[in-house]
Amino acid sequence: MGESEAILKILEKSPVFENCEPTSLTQFVAQSNIISVEKGQILFVHEEPAKRFFMVLGGWVKLFRETLDGSQAIIDILPAGHLLGETSVFDDNKYPYSAEAVEQTKLISIPLNLLKSEIDDNPKMASAMLYHMAKVRRQQDRELEHLVVQNAPQRIGCFLLRLTNQREEGPAKIQLPYDKSLVAARLGMQPETFSRALSKLKEATGLEINGSTISLNNVRQLIEFSCAACSSEFPCKDLKSKASCATQ
Amino acid sequence: MGESEAILKILEKSPVFENCEPTSLTQFVAQSNIISVEKGQILFVHEEPAKRFFMVLGGWVKLFRETLDGSQAIIDILPAGHLLGETSVFDDNKYPYSAEAVEQTKLISIPLNLLKSEIDDNPKMASAMLYHMAKVRRQQDRELEHLVVQNAPQRIGCFLLRLTNQREEGPAKIQLPYDKSLVAARLGMQPETFSRALSKLKEATGLEINGSTISLNNVRQLIEFSCAACSSEFPCKDLKSKASCATQ
Repeated sequence: MGESEAILKILEKSPVFENCEPTSLTQFVAQSNIISVEKGQILFVHEEPAKRFFMVLGGWVKLFRETLDGSQAIIDILPAGHLLGETSVFDDNKYPYSAEAVEQTKLISIPLNLLKSEIDDNPKMASAMLYHMAKVRRQQDRELEHLVVQNAPQRIGCFLLRLTNQREEGPAKIQLPYDKSLVAARLGMQPETFSRALSKLKEATGLEINGSTISLNNVRQLIEFSCAACSSEFPCKDLKSKASCATQ
Repeated sequence: MGESEAILKILEKSPVFENCEPTSLTQFVAQSNIISVEKGQILFVHEEPAKRFFMVLGGWVKLFRETLDGSQAIIDILPAGHLLGETSVFDDNKYPYSAEAVEQTKLISIPLNLLKSEIDDNPKMASAMLYHMAKVRRQQDRELEHLVVQNAPQRIGCFLLRLTNQREEGPAKIQLPYDKSLVAARLGMQPETFSRALSKLKEATGLEINGSTISLNNVRQLIEFSCAACSSEFPCKDLKSKASCATQ
């Protein structure tokens, strides 16, 4: 399969692009390309003029901003299926964050001006984009809620639950997707806080950690522990999960 | 001025409605009404079917959700000029949070189905809504960043800075818009944490508190203290401020 054909197959299945006019989709495909970036490579920098946006195909991309005093605030770490930089069209064409590959990562690079004109010209595309934005807003809303009401062990538990197959109960093995230090930063915790919280989570739910593999006797224990401090019942429809990655 | 005339004047100046077709605007006005709710009154409840959305005209509305174990997560406290419940159209027509008046509050109540059909039929309205959603997303993004990188005294300082006239430096008097306990909850802090953080903020910036009035010798001290742990320079364009309320 050629690159264009591959891009077409991916875009036409994506919730944002499936409403694209066929002629516009052809244009998107013609002007997009698949890129591969190494671990640590910066894709774009916060506030820089935005020309392209991206869809993650494989790997992980860290979105972050640097504060004036030099610390880094991690906004998100995106797996396959997710868009990044797409909201620049509503923000003076400037990137709202910086993006860096956490490991070797494959992405589709797509021109932003095409997205802008398709949104302006095609009401269905505008509507798809609105649903997409509303979904991201619900996810952010939930993250804000958790930062306020969940304690650190519960937040780690919630993060782990999103990595499980959310339909199954009983024993489970969960693979951490990236370094523990990055998980801590993603959850807005200092490494020491993360360590202490993980110990408490082990005590409370009986989970076992072996390198990057986490074993649980029963997912239900983790659900009861973490989801008590959440306004949504498990399985959660708002938060990004492994299962929902493929379709965003 | 009659109620309809008053509603028309407000809606046609609002960023979301200014792109409405004149005939649709007439419909919005005809089917909207101004309501007054008492302190503590619930406007709508999380997950309930949504029929109306609202624009705050005066007073404050608390948006919140209740967790399964019964605690309350405050999502926002909205002043005049802000919309609430409007994103239900993208969320199965269910309210994404509960809303309660923090004091006596005046609002315009607007039918949600009109918003839905206007977004579907009028690309300019869809586009206005996209810009509105993008703005809310940037605000949420900034809140998430602050919850992760700012310490408690810095978060209080940031909250106070949003209540100042962001164009002026030098001495300032800031009026707390509602109870200190609500400010604490809005910032996701326990009352004790809030008290301790406020003392630290006083030490660091020399601010003085007298009831609900806060006096500062120089706003610059507060800016230097709080905005160091933020990726945006002061005056911030993302966060809701007193000055930006009127135009959302």
